[in-house]
Amino acid sequence: MQPFKNIGLIGRLGSAKVVETLRRLIRFLSARGHHVIIEDRTATVLLDHGQQESSRRLLGDICDLVIVVGGDGSLLGAGRAMCLSGTPVLGVNRGRLGFLTDISPDDVEDKVGAVLDGHYDSEQRFLLDAEVFRNGSLVGTADGLNDVVVHPGKAARMIEFELFVDGQFVYSQRSDGLIIATPTGSTAYALSGGGPIVHPGLEAITLVPMFPHTLSSRPIVVDAASEITLHIGETNEAYPHVSCDGQTQVVSKPGDILYVRRKPQRLTLIHPRGHNYYEICRSKLGWSSRLGE
Amino acid sequence: MQPFKNIGLIGRLGSAKVVETLRRLIRFLSARGHHVIIEDRTATVLLDHGQQESSRRLLGDICDLVIVVGGDGSLLGAGRAMCLSGTPVLGVNRGRLGFLTDISPDDVEDKVGAVLDGHYDSEQRFLLDAEVFRNGSLVGTADGLNDVVVHPGKAARMIEFELFVDGQFVYSQRSDGLIIATPTGSTAYALSGGGPIVHPGLEAITLVPMFPHTLSSRPIVVDAASEITLHIGETNEAYPHVSCDGQTQVVSKPGDILYVRRKPQRLTLIHPRGHNYYEICRSKLGWSSRLGE
Amino acid sequence: MQPFKNIGLIGRLGSAKVVETLRRLIRFLSARGHHVIIEDRTATVLLDHGQQESSRRLLGDICDLVIVVGGDGSLLGAGRAMCLSGTPVLGVNRGRLGFLTDISPDDVEDKVGAVLDGHYDSEQRFLLDAEVFRNGSLVGTADGLNDVVVHPGKAARMIEFELFVDGQFVYSQRSDGLIIATPTGSTAYALSGGGPIVHPGLEAITLVPMFPHTLSSRPIVVDAASEITLHIGETNEAYPHVSCDGQTQVVSKPGDILYVRRKPQRLTLIHPRGHNYYEICRSKLGWSSRLGE
Amino acid sequence: MQPFKNIGLIGRLGSAKVVETLRRLIRFLSARGHHVIIEDRTATVLLDHGQQESSRRLLGDICDLVIVVGGDGSLLGAGRAMCLSGTPVLGVNRGRLGFLTDISPDDVEDKVGAVLDGHYDSEQRFLLDAEVFRNGSLVGTADGLNDVVVHPGKAARMIEFELFVDGQFVYSQRSDGLIIATPTGSTAYALSGGGPIVHPGLEAITLVPMFPHTLSSRPIVVDAASEITLHIGETNEAYPHVSCDGQTQVVSKPGDILYVRRKPQRLTLIHPRGHNYYEICRSKLGWSSRLGE
Repeated sequence: MQPFKNIGLIGRLGSAKVVETLRRLIRFLSARGHHVIIEDRTATVLLDHGQQESSRRLLGDICDLVIVVGGDGSLLGAGRAMCLSGTPVLGVNRGRLGFLTDISPDDVEDKVGAVLDGHYDSEQRFLLDAEVFRNGSLVGTADGLNDVVVHPGKAARMIEFELFVDGQFVYSQRSDGLIIATPTGSTAYALSGGGPIVHPGLEAITLVPMFPHTLSSRPIVVDAASEITLHIGETNEAYPHVSCDGQTQVVSKPGDILYVRRKPQRLTLIHPRGHNYYEICRSKLGWSSRLGE
Repeated sequence: MQPFKNIGLIGRLGSAKVVETLRRLIRFLSARGHHVIIEDRTATVLLDHGQQESSRRLLGDICDLVIVVGGDGSLLGAGRAMCLSGTPVLGVNRGRLGFLTDISPDDVEDKVGAVLDGHYDSEQRFLLDAEVFRNGSLVGTADGLNDVVVHPGKAARMIEFELFVDGQFVYSQRSDGLIIATPTGSTAYALSGGGPIVHPGLEAITLVPMFPHTLSSRPIVVDAASEITLHIGETNEAYPHVSCDGQTQVVSKPGDILYVRRKPQRLTLIHPRGHNYYEICRSKLGWSSRLGE
Repeated sequence: MQPFKNIGLIGRLGSAKVVETLRRLIRFLSARGHHVIIEDRTATVLLDHGQQESSRRLLGDICDLVIVVGGDGSLLGAGRAMCLSGTPVLGVNRGRLGFLTDISPDDVEDKVGAVLDGHYDSEQRFLLDAEVFRNGSLVGTADGLNDVVVHPGKAARMIEFELFVDGQFVYSQRSDGLIIATPTGSTAYALSGGGPIVHPGLEAITLVPMFPHTLSSRPIVVDAASEITLHIGETNEAYPHVSCDGQTQVVSKPGDILYVRRKPQRLTLIHPRGHNYYEICRSKLGWSSRLGE
Repeated sequence: MQPFKNIGLIGRLGSAKVVETLRRLIRFLSARGHHVIIEDRTATVLLDHGQQESSRRLLGDICDLVIVVGGDGSLLGAGRAMCLSGTPVLGVNRGRLGFLTDISPDDVEDKVGAVLDGHYDSEQRFLLDAEVFRNGSLVGTADGLNDVVVHPGKAARMIEFELFVDGQFVYSQRSDGLIIATPTGSTAYALSGGGPIVHPGLEAITLVPMFPHTLSSRPIVVDAASEITLHIGETNEAYPHVSCDGQTQVVSKPGDILYVRRKPQRLTLIHPRGHNYYEICRSKLGWSSRLGE
C-alpha cells in the first residue's frame, strides 16, 4: 500500500533555486510512479512540466500529500489552505529560516523518498480564526498558523484597546498593538517582541503586547481553548489593522470587536523520521550543543 | 450540612498584625461553632488561645479547611504541606503582595463567613517535585508550588548544565541558573527574570534562564506533563543549589542529575466567590482598568 | 530687572481644560504686567483674548519665554520650534504623562509666578537632525527632541538596513525598524522598545532595534557627537518612513541614506526650582519611595 | 626608537595552550631583543623559562607593555593591576570570548610584531572604585574594569537598598541586586541582565537591576562622573556582597553605605592597528554582516 499516491507541489515564486528543486522533485516523484499535481500559480514558473495543474483551493481535496518548496512563509500559506481538507504538508527549505520546512534541498530524494516509504513523523498544529464585528455584524475574517496581529496600520501611532479572555476583562492597553500567537508562531514575530518559546505540543495561545505604554504589560500565556476578545477603543485615531501570518488583512474601525479562537481544523505537518523540535531551535537560534563538544 | 467543620489556622511569625487577625479569626470561628486547630508554631505567638494545637504535618489530616494569615510566602509553605492530604487552603493577606492570599484583613468576618456558608470558588494548583541523583542514587528531594530554581549558591558565579525535556536534549547553558516555574510561580520570581505570565488554568511549566551567557536563550513553555532534566556540568566550580519557593535546598555536585516533574497531588485553593485572576493581576501589577474609567 | 518680559503661550488644541488653564495664565500674566503673545493656532480656541498673536515660527523671536499648556507631545512640538531662537520653554501639564511638563495646572499662579520672579532651574536638551539622501541629493529633513524612528510605514512588514556609527559599519538588520533616541526620548517610545533610561545630563544617543529578527540585536548607547547612518536596503519591499517625535515624516526609498546627527541648537527647558529628574521618574514610572515610607 | 623595551607577560593558569603561547611569545620577544619579565605566578607553569620574574604589583613599574595570554577574565585582572602605573596592556586570546583580548594565538608573531613596530591603536578605559562604609568608617574597597555588583551572597534571597546618583534619591528597590557597569562591562554580565551595549568611547555608567521585584525598574545610564551611592536597607536578612569583575569581594552589613565612582587612573588598552569595536561585537554576538554578503 502506498499512502501518498497523489502529491501536490507548491513553490515560492521568484526564485530560480525553488524552480530547480521543484523540477528535481517532479522527476523524482514521476519516476516513483506518483501522480503529481502542480498548484496553478506555481505552474506559471515551470514551463512544459507536463503534469496536472490545480488551484490551491482544490489541491487539498485531490492530493494525499502536499510538498511545499520555499521558506516558512510559503509553508504558512500552504498550511492555511490545507488545514481545511486535512491534507498533510511536507516542507523543503529554500528560504532564510526553516522552523517548518526542515528538508534541505540537497537531500530531497533521500528524505522525501523515505517519507513516501512511510518513514515519517506526523504532528498536528493548530491555527487561529479571527473575526471582526462592527455593530453586531461580521465585517471580516482571517486565519493564521503563526499569529493574529492587531496594529495601527500606519506605524508610529498608538492604538488603544481592551483585552478579554473567556469574557473576563484583562486590561486596557495603549501600545503599538498585540500579537496573538500559536506555539508555531512563538518562534516567529512573537519571539522578536519578547514572547516565550512555546513547545508546539502545548495547547496554548500567547499574547504579546507590542511596545506597550506601561512597563508592567508582559506576555501572557493562556489555554488554547480560550476565546480572546479585543474591544478596539472608540477614541482611536488610527484604524487598527488585523493581519494574520503577516499577510491577510482586515481593517477595523474604532468600536469594532475582534474575536480570536482556535480553528476547528488543524494542519498535519509531516517530518522525516527523527524530527526534533529542540534540534531545530538549536540550529536556528544558535543554542549551544552538548557540553564538551 | 457544614462542609468546613474543623478549621486549621497558620500564621506568619513575627508580626503583631498577623496575631491580631488570628485572634479575630479564632473569636469569629468559635462563635460560629467551628472547631479550631492552631498549628503548633503559630500557637507560640498566641498565648492563652484555648484551642487544640497540631503539628503542620498532621493539620491537613484533621482539618476540613486551613486558613493562612500572612503573605504569599506563608501560603506557599502551607500549600506544600496541605497538598498531600488534599485539604483546601484559604489565604488572608497580611503581607506585601497577595496573588494567593486574596482576603483583606478588614473583611475577615464577611469574606471568611461567606466561604464557610458555601459561597466560594475552588481551584486546583499543581506543584513541582525535584529529585537530585548522584551516581544513580537519590541524594535529595524538595517540592515547590511556585518554582524550582537551580543557582550557583554563591552569587556571581556561573553554572553550566545541559537541559533535557522528556529526554530530548534542549541546550547546554552557562548562566546564573534556571527557574522552573508553575503557572502559580509565573507571577513571582520567574516574572522578574523575564518569563511570561501563565494563566493558572494552563497545565504548563516555564523554563526561565537566569542571566544567560548567550542572548538567544529565552523562556520556554512546555507541557506540565513533561519531565525536565538538568545534567549539572562536570566542570562546574560551584556546587549548584536547588531551591524551591525560595526556601528548601538541596546542594548538588558537578555531575549530578536533577529531575523536575509535576507532583501527583495538587493544592486546592479556596477563594471568595467571584474571584478573578486578571483582577488580581491588574491590582498587583498596576495594569490599566476599563477605558473611560 | 525682569528677565521674562514678553511671554508666548502655546496650548494643545481640542481640550476645554487647556483653554481654562490658558485663560487663567493670561489673566495672571497680564495682571503682573507681562506682555502676552498667543500662538495663532492656539488663539483660534481663545475667543476675545485681547492679546497679540503670532505664528509659531516668529513666536521665538519676539518672546523671552514660551509657556506650553498640554502634554509632553505639545511641548515636543514647541521645543522643536523654539530651539532655533533659543527661547526658553516652560511646560504646564494638561496631558497624560508629564516628563517635560512639570507644573500642575492647579499650581499655575504659584509655580509660574516663582519662575517669573527668577526662582527657576534651567537645563539644555539636545535634538536630532535627520536628513535623507537619494542618489547624492537631499530629499527630506526633519528634527526630533525625543527620537528619529525608521519604520516600514505599513506595519507588519520588515525592513532591511545597514547601520553605521561615525562611518564604522555596525550591522545589517532585518526588523520593524530602529529608534534613534535622545536622553529626552529615552523615557518615551524607546523605553517601550526595551531601551535604557538615559539621564538628560548625558550626551548620548540610544539606538533601539524594533522587533529585530535576530535575538542578539540589543540597544546600543553611543556618544551624542556620533553621526548615525542608515543605508536602506536596495531590496526592501516597503518604503521605510522616517518619523520624528511620532509626527514629521519623510518617506524614503530603497537605496536611500539617512543621516542622524545632534542638532547644533539646543532647547532650554525651564523648571520651577528644585526640579528633580528622578522624582519625575518615580512618579511617572511608579518607582518605589524611600524605605520605611 | 623602540617604545616597548621591557615587556611583561601574564598568563591564565591551568591551560596547556596558554603555556604554549607564552613559550612562543618568549622566543619571539627574546629574538627581537626585548627584555622579558614574567609575572611570578605565571612563572610557576613555565619551567626553565630563563627570564626575569616579578610580582604582579611591581610588573607595571618595570615594564613598558604587558601582554596577557588568556581570556577576558585574565585581562580584567591584569588591567586592574596595570592601571595604577599606566602601563599599556595587550591581550592574546586563549579563552572563550574575547572582547578585550583580540589577537588570535595563531597570529602572535605577526600581530604582536606589528604592535612592537609601532603599528597599533591605543584606547583608554575607565574603571570603577567601590568603597563600603559602616557607621562612617571605611570597611572595604575594591575596583572593577567591568563592573561592581551588589548581590545577596546567598542566591535566591532578595536584598533591599536605596539608590542615589550624585546625592539625588533615585529609588528604593527589592531585587537580587544591582550591576554597576562601565562601558567595558556593558558587553559582559550587564548584557545578560538586559543592559544596553555602551560604546567604550562614551563616559557613562550603566545601572542594571537584577530580577527587580517591580517591573518598572529598568537599566539607567548616567554620566561616568556621577557618584553612585547605595544605602543597604537596615532590615535586610542577607549580608549583601560587593563583587568586582566577578571576583574581589567585600561583605556588607545592613545599614552600610556603598560608594561607586570612576577611578582616577585609567587602563591603556593596545590593539593591532585597524581595531574596530563593532567588528568585535559582530563576531562575538553574531550580528549580521553587510547586506548581500
